This record gives sequence, structure tokens and C-alpha cells, in this order.
Amino acid sequence: MADAVNSNSKEEAAQLPDGVSSVIPGWFSEISPMWPGEAHSLKVEKILFQGKSDYQNVMVFQSSTYGKVLVLDGVIQLTERDECAYQEMIAHLPLCSIPSPKKVLVIGGGDGGVLREVARHLSVEQIDICEIDKMVVDVSKQFFPDVAVGFEDPRVVLHIGDGVAFLKAVPEGTYDAIIVDSSDPIGPAQELFEKPFFESVAKALRPGGVVCTQAESIWLHMHIIEDIVANCRQIFKGSVNYAWTTVPTYPSGVIGFMLCSTEGPPVDFKHPINPIDANDGRSKTMKPLKFYNSEIHSAAFCLPSFAKKVIDSKAN
Amino acid sequence: MADAVNSNSKEEAAQLPDGVSSVIPGWFSEISPMWPGEAHSLKVEKILFQGKSDYQNVMVFQSSTYGKVLVLDGVIQLTERDECAYQEMIAHLPLCSIPSPKKVLVIGGGDGGVLREVARHLSVEQIDICEIDKMVVDVSKQFFPDVAVGFEDPRVVLHIGDGVAFLKAVPEGTYDAIIVDSSDPIGPAQELFEKPFFESVAKALRPGGVVCTQAESIWLHMHIIEDIVANCRQIFKGSVNYAWTTVPTYPSGVIGFMLCSTEGPPVDFKHPINPIDANDGRSKTMKPLKFYNSEIHSAAFCLPSFAKKVIDSKAN
Repeated sequence: MADAVNSNSKEEAAQLPDGVSSVIPGWFSEISPMWPGEAHSLKVEKILFQGKSDYQNVMVFQSSTYGKVLVLDGVIQLTERDECAYQEMIAHLPLCSIPSPKKVLVIGGGDGGVLREVARHLSVEQIDICEIDKMVVDVSKQFFPDVAVGFEDPRVVLHIGDGVAFLKAVPEGTYDAIIVDSSDPIGPAQELFEKPFFESVAKALRPGGVVCTQAESIWLHMHIIEDIVANCRQIFKGSVNYAWTTVPTYPSGVIGFMLCSTEGPPVDFKHPINPIDANDGRSKTMKPLKFYNSEIHSAAFCLPSFAKKVIDSKAN
Repeated sequence: MADAVNSNSKEEAAQLPDGVSSVIPGWFSEISPMWPGEAHSLKVEKILFQGKSDYQNVMVFQSSTYGKVLVLDGVIQLTERDECAYQEMIAHLPLCSIPSPKKVLVIGGGDGGVLREVARHLSVEQIDICEIDKMVVDVSKQFFPDVAVGFEDPRVVLHIGDGVAFLKAVPEGTYDAIIVDSSDPIGPAQELFEKPFFESVAKALRPGGVVCTQAESIWLHMHIIEDIVANCRQIFKGSVNYAWTTVPTYPSGVIGFMLCSTEGPPVDFKHPINPIDANDGRSKTMKPLKFYNSEIHSAAFCLPSFAKKVIDSKAN
């Protein structure tokens, strides 16, 4: 998916990890057909890991100003400097919107950051995670201890496997919340953006259960978002909402989330009823929230007019 | 301020406009000590203009996916694709927060985009603009007609000159609102971030008048923001607030605004009392708002916890 920038020769580029250009020595550049004509680059201090799993290329590097960086197939998944925004929002937007969540499933999220955030919720009794790529888990445990710390919670059960297949085997109505922490729809995560997957999600949720999925950028991917919203509107008979937040190292600097609930007790995502700000200090081993609070929860659902127009037209 | 990426030789780089690298043919890369270790790059279709004014290097290029781009001293000022976010927010956050603004001053903003937005307010009778660099105005009129259209409003009076000097000569209490659309504090805009300038702004405003200034990124410049907030708290005896929005082509993908009011009728910036959404259709010659609405106005004041902590501690 990602290539070195203007490689002098394909042979030369092939020996370098995705995005580490042979012509800009010392910089990683993120180039993809998902965001044509632009590239964000980070200065590389040292490449710490590069490997090829059964599913994707995996790389970790030490950047000069964003801490350590995890890259899958040439696309930045997280940096130590800004991962808080994504992980906290994708976890707390759904979990703070329902009373006392008990059973939570995470699809993807092999770095463990979402688990770390889910674990802040003291009502939660069971946290299943289904990640397709064991290398992501191993690499995260080795290089990102403050993120992979999520795996240490005793409520977490890790399943290595295909999220789509896992969901199909789940008894109906099992989960209070499902969080889909996927990469982009090109590559191993493609199915996680398609209708049959959302149908499995809806079935695996209890009535009035909630799902939160990574849903791309309002600046770059309105056509994808439009389709996701239309699909979700058909499948989730509770509420269907789009929220967004700022993540500097994601393309266009923002990332969005689809938040939907199944038929049952109504869920008003815009007004969190299960605030976590107060819980924050309860555990001595847990670091304070860096990004999320109840105000930014509600604010995340306020969309620029150009996005609101498209999403509202599909959502109603 | 900005250099070509890893130039092979300084001589070679010197012949190219700022940021147009001699080693990444066809891409513009934005590198600056204001955001060390990272660079956003846009693919260049064609360089349309390059010049050197008395104050800075001025460049315009056609990008492959962001429309035309205006660059000053190697830093992107606006792209046709995302300029709506910045211009609409910096203008309507202050003007929608006070009843019936009549006299408005814009400092900087030589591209005309802020004028275009101020002109949507039918209550406004006088729009002064003081831009230091005539080349910015001329280039905008030539290459960005949809932005420079702001100059065509009959209420606009353009002053070419130093904003600091202009403000000092303004009779006390002249303006209802002052908008400071400056570039970064390295270069010609440096003084616009300093205390004496804010003192002149406060004097030029009527009691209960408002100022909105470009105030950098919460992800990159908390140290600068901290100082600005502390200065403003001393000088503006009404309210002092920080807001932010998403602009993909600005470093870290966000830009912030300081919103302050002088002593007098209280201003609650977070709850707009002079909504513009409804006005929008009144003029046939005016294009609809793309970004701003009353919901996103209020949401802009909700800060991530890490920023809220710092700003609240300085603001009270």
C-alpha cells in the first residue's frame, strides 16, 4: 500500500521498510492511495523492528519527536505522543454512553491500547479481544509497554484469529459493547467495513448494546463514511451517530468513529451517562486520562457543516 | 524558516522556492523549527508564482489534491480544499458571540478570506483590514478569487502597513471586534504574539468588545499558548477562552484561537447569541458556509484534558 517516495530504483526501495524512503535518508513518509497527493513524514532516529507477518509488514521506529511509532503496511498506527487521543476516544465514547457495561469485545486493537482504556471501567467483568495478527501483539508488548499494559488486566482474554469468524461464533446478545479498532479498509481490515460484518456485530450485541468502529476521516473519506452510515442505518435499529477527534499523525489530522446501538433501551451517545472522569483516580496503577473528558465526548459529535449535511442525509 | 528536505547542496536548494525539495522532485515539504521532526508534504502539479516581498517569500502552487496553495516563508497559509475551516472559525467565533457587531478590524489576513466571512454579518458597517504585505493581497487576488472576494465588499477598507502601528493610532474603544489572522510567531508576525500588542488591541476595543487571534496548536505549542493565555488574562478583564478546530494542512492538523473580551457587557463565547446559520441564504452572491455552525462553535471550546489542565491553570 505504501511506497518509498520517488525511489530511484524499485530494487533499492524493496530492501527498505515501507515508507522509509531511499531518497529522504532518515525520514519515514506515509504515502497511500487512501490519501493521494499528500504525505506526512516523521524523522527517524532508529528502526527498532521490521518483520513480515502472515498478514502485513510490521515496523517500529524511534522518531525524533513523536516517541516510538508502530507502522503496519507503511501506515502509522500509533505514536507514543498522540496515541492517547485515539485509544481514549474509541473506548470511552461507547462505554460512557451506557450504564454499567459488563461484557466488552475488542476486534483488532492488537497493540493493547484500547484494552488499557476499557480496563478503566470498573463495571466491566469480561474483556475479549480478537486480533488477527499475533506479531502486532508481540511487537507491542516488546516496544510499547505503556500501551500493551492493557493485556495485563486479568479480565482480558486474547483470541488470535479472524474477527469476522470470531463474531459469527458468538452467541446472540453476548456483549454490552463492541469496539472495532481496525486499520484502513485496504488490507486485512477490509471486511470490517462491510455490511455482513456489521450484521454480525449487531447480532452479538445485547438489546441496547453499542458498537464503536474506526471510521476514517471527514476530510478524506466522505464517500466511505457515507456508505458506512447508510449500512449502519439499515442494520442498527437504535441510534446511529458519527463522532470525530484530532490525531496529529493520522492523515488529515482527524479520525472518526461510527457509534451505533441496537434496538432496546435507547442510547443517547451525545450525552454520556456513565462518566469516567471521576473514576480516574481510583486505581493507583492506572495513569490519568490524557485526552478524554465528558465535554470533549459531547463535542466529538458536532460536525462541520459539509460533513453534517452528508451524514444527516444518510442517517435519517 | 523552511528548508528543502535533505538538500544535496545548499547552492542547489537556494535556487528552489522554500520547501520545494531538490531531492523529492514534484513535492512540497513543510519543514520548520516550529514543528521539529515532522513534515507535511503535498504533491505539486505546477508552481504558479514565486516572489520575494519586503517581508517574506511568497509562493503559490497548484497541488494535485488540495487545489491551489499559498505559502509564505515555506509555511502553508491556505489551500483551496480546507481554507473554509480556518476562515469561518476565526471570523464567526468572535462575531457570533456578540450582538450586532458594527465595526470590525482584521490584522493580517491579506488573502481576504476572513473579510469574506466577516462580510456575511449584515449588522457590520465598517471592515478595516491592516495587512503588512501588499504582495499577499495581490497574489491572492490573482490566484485565489474565491478567497480574495472578501476585498470586493464595499464596507472593506484596506490599509497596507504594520498592524502594531495601525492599532496604536486607533482611537480608544473604536471596534466591536478585532480579528488577528497572523502567521506563526517566527517572522513578520512575531510582535502579534507579544503583550504590548494585546494591550493595544484591548484599548482599541469598546467595552465588551472581542478579539480572536490565531493561537497555534495544542499538540505542538502548549508553551506558546500558555504564555498567550497568561498575557491575555492580565490584559482582558472580560473573559479569556481558548478554542480550536481542524485544518488538515496546518501542522498537527489543528489550529487554535484565543478569544477574549474587554471589561463591559459580559461575553459568553461558548454560547453564540448571534447565530449566522440562518443569515446564510440571504445573499445570492454569497456561497453557503462550508464548515461553521452553532454546534461546532460551542464544541470548539471543549479541550482535551492535557490542554484544559494547562489553559485552565493560566486562565483563572
